Amino acid sequence: MTLAALKARLTDIYLLNRANAVLSWDQQTQMPPGGAAARAEQLAVLGKLAHQMLVAGETGELLAAAEAETTGMGAEQDDAAYVRVAREVYDDATKLPESWVVEFNRTTAQAHHIWAKAREEKDFQQFLPTLERIFDLVRQQADYLGYAEKPYDALLDKFERGTTSAEVAAIFGQLRTALVPIVHAIQANQDRVSDAPLHGQFPSAQQRAFGEFVVKQFGFNFENGRQDVAVHPFCTSFSPRDVRITTRFDETWLSPALFGTMHESGHGLYEQGIPLHWENDILGNAVSLAFHESQSRLWENVVGRSRAFWGHFYPRLQATFPQQFENVDVEAFYRAVNQVKPSFIRVEADEVTYALHIMLRFDLEQAVINDGFPVKELPDAWNAKMQEYLGITPPDDGLGVLQDIHWSLGIMGYFSTYALGNMLAVQLYDLATAQHPSIPAEIAEGQFETLLGWMRSNIHQHGSKYRPKALLKRVTGADQIDPAPFLRYIQHKYGEIYAL
Amino acid sequence: MTLAALKARLTDIYLLNRANAVLSWDQQTQMPPGGAAARAEQLAVLGKLAHQMLVAGETGELLAAAEAETTGMGAEQDDAAYVRVAREVYDDATKLPESWVVEFNRTTAQAHHIWAKAREEKDFQQFLPTLERIFDLVRQQADYLGYAEKPYDALLDKFERGTTSAEVAAIFGQLRTALVPIVHAIQANQDRVSDAPLHGQFPSAQQRAFGEFVVKQFGFNFENGRQDVAVHPFCTSFSPRDVRITTRFDETWLSPALFGTMHESGHGLYEQGIPLHWENDILGNAVSLAFHESQSRLWENVVGRSRAFWGHFYPRLQATFPQQFENVDVEAFYRAVNQVKPSFIRVEADEVTYALHIMLRFDLEQAVINDGFPVKELPDAWNAKMQEYLGITPPDDGLGVLQDIHWSLGIMGYFSTYALGNMLAVQLYDLATAQHPSIPAEIAEGQFETLLGWMRSNIHQHGSKYRPKALLKRVTGADQIDPAPFLRYIQHKYGEIYAL
Repeated sequence: MTLAALKARLTDIYLLNRANAVLSWDQQTQMPPGGAAARAEQLAVLGKLAHQMLVAGETGELLAAAEAETTGMGAEQDDAAYVRVAREVYDDATKLPESWVVEFNRTTAQAHHIWAKAREEKDFQQFLPTLERIFDLVRQQADYLGYAEKPYDALLDKFERGTTSAEVAAIFGQLRTALVPIVHAIQANQDRVSDAPLHGQFPSAQQRAFGEFVVKQFGFNFENGRQDVAVHPFCTSFSPRDVRITTRFDETWLSPALFGTMHESGHGLYEQGIPLHWENDILGNAVSLAFHESQSRLWENVVGRSRAFWGHFYPRLQATFPQQFENVDVEAFYRAVNQVKPSFIRVEADEVTYALHIMLRFDLEQAVINDGFPVKELPDAWNAKMQEYLGITPPDDGLGVLQDIHWSLGIMGYFSTYALGNMLAVQLYDLATAQHPSIPAEIAEGQFETLLGWMRSNIHQHGSKYRPKALLKRVTGADQIDPAPFLRYIQHKYGEIYAL
Repeated sequence: MTLAALKARLTDIYLLNRANAVLSWDQQTQMPPGGAAARAEQLAVLGKLAHQMLVAGETGELLAAAEAETTGMGAEQDDAAYVRVAREVYDDATKLPESWVVEFNRTTAQAHHIWAKAREEKDFQQFLPTLERIFDLVRQQADYLGYAEKPYDALLDKFERGTTSAEVAAIFGQLRTALVPIVHAIQANQDRVSDAPLHGQFPSAQQRAFGEFVVKQFGFNFENGRQDVAVHPFCTSFSPRDVRITTRFDETWLSPALFGTMHESGHGLYEQGIPLHWENDILGNAVSLAFHESQSRLWENVVGRSRAFWGHFYPRLQATFPQQFENVDVEAFYRAVNQVKPSFIRVEADEVTYALHIMLRFDLEQAVINDGFPVKELPDAWNAKMQEYLGITPPDDGLGVLQDIHWSLGIMGYFSTYALGNMLAVQLYDLATAQHPSIPAEIAEGQFETLLGWMRSNIHQHGSKYRPKALLKRVTGADQIDPAPFLRYIQHKYGEIYAL
């Protein structure tokens, strides 16, 4: 009975949050410019009501009683999992005092505009006072949330529950040691690959048709989802039967929409794979950001940049853009989409250098949060790390320390999940392939049921029933994400492309 | 202070309702089919929370205190108007007992499917028990809401506050007496007009481009709005700066999208004309349904079906569909869009017969609600009235008593506002033209600033600050909507077209 009352309350909150997501999706894909001010007010009210309902004394009482009710249940039982997740959500919300929440929201709401202008004008000084204030607030947040070893652990835990910064640092250390020499070796053989085929004239309508055809083959169900255009593409879900992916079209450059669509469809396939009995249930959320990113990177890179994939799909792409690809064979195209080239902008980075962009941010965030590194010295530290990891130095802060939106939103501790997801993608793919050796041949035939089916039954169907590390253990047998499969994949793939 | 607290509370509720409108818009224009079940849950939670916040004891206390605070203020003062509107909204919500609301929502939620199937299968008996239950519930609703003379007045008052059914009956009586002979006379001269030019091949993209060009000329601002496709077109507003109109395209018939877009843009122009200082304020609602419909009918019919309008826009339409209109001159096109022909379906009716469709519904609703006319006899009564008013008898109930969605939703008392709006459109147009005799010549030049400006300053800018009848008095000097201008307009326009 108590559990039923708790569920009724949390379901209302969950539905409010989904309504909020609908308004955000509309804001980013449909809303006319004039709608911005009223939309901000609508979103604020939905957020306020959901927060008030969550932190209300009644929720805490129901939760405590439900915990008593489910004591002794095994973790395999849904109700035990439900109460565990409810506790996590409730604690996250109640540990932060109202005064902090108000100040944080006020500061970050103003910060967006200041950051955008500073980036536009390549002037870090404009953003510095705001960024200092945000780092102060986030440092306070870490104290409110609590941690065992380092303040940064509290932040990381928000996004990848149960993973510590020490673990991530160890994984990243192994990764960096292996990647930096590979990047240098590739640099020496740059002339083996040209990305020229990806630049030219590509009308949006044809790009859209090809991209949607591909992700439909992956298994993305357009009866239960749709694709729209957004400036900053994303995936959002209002139900496993209503998943919205977004993309952006550059009519002179094929890559953003082509790989962006595959990437977001990976997120979307995860959301569409959540069991229907958790349609409006907190257990129907994805387990963690690293797992989510593992799915997007799987379809974008491990599948979507593979020779097997293009062996099947390239003739169709050629037929879609006959003039553009008249004199480009599949091997040249395969190399083009796998060009490795150190660059300033993370979101445009290739598979090999991407993790180095992440490590840089991970290092700097930890330095500020854990060790009080001065925020005003971040631009120089950024540029020094870029030189150390990638051998290049940004010409200005717009291409350097100001490039990401995350800090202006007060989101610290998030970046590492991108790189963790990258590694996890290969780890999961190798496992699926070990259990189903037919997968690579199926990809070469444009068949993805076995691969998707494995992800469905091993990852998607569990929602957030298990803790991220418990799910990892259950699927891989390992206690933490293993960089070895990713490194083997990189060495094998790019060793061949670049004749290392 | 009390008033400020009341406003803060009602603003939150207002914003929740706007969020609800965003979700409804998405549901009807964007949502993939799979999203329906979760969307119903999301909408239900938003509706429940808004209702709970409105009927809470605290709202009533704040309202009573605010009424004391504003006692003695003139009706011209915004704060007095605010408290008046707040009282109306509050009373509407609190007069209905919770048990009735639950039963009504449950019944009408189930009714939609039953009605749709009955209409599809042209079988009134399938819908009869449900419709009887709905009429019972609506009859109870009238008692809860209260009325001076007839129960039906309580229902009408929900949509057209301050107007009684006796007033409407008197207006409709004058109208019918004049219209029925006109319809018969037109019938005798049917061969003077053919609507053949409107049927052919009209690709949606060109229809959309032409329609959006026209409504942009009217003054609809696409920076503060957009148009999408919906099965049942409508207009909704999330802010005066975010107004969504919808249309539907029939590629073999020009009328639905062409006049539908103009119609919805009229609603949209009203919403875009609400003052920004009431952006998230209950005074920022339109004053009544009849006034709203007057705006849509003004642009659709009085402007959009006029000879002056087509003298200017027809060359552009010809250029848009050159083959289709190669041998159709502007006079033939003007006649085509003004064909009068008694038909079974209200939403496809012309300007002359439309009001007769409405009167039929008005008569039957009153008979059941006021006099206990048996619901099971509605099909025969419907068909008899159709014969009496329009001289035709529906071949089945799908084209007769089952055609409208309204009754299945429990919406009774609404229909008459459509016909009232029709009359008001001409009454307002005549006034505007009397004050600005240049308006007809401006329309012939494709210029609409003066006409729109008059509507802005006389109607739109007042939101719901005045009661509908007070606004009518203020603008026209009259106590009620006058059918005479509409009748003169019909007699003049159709007398000429049909050589009566």
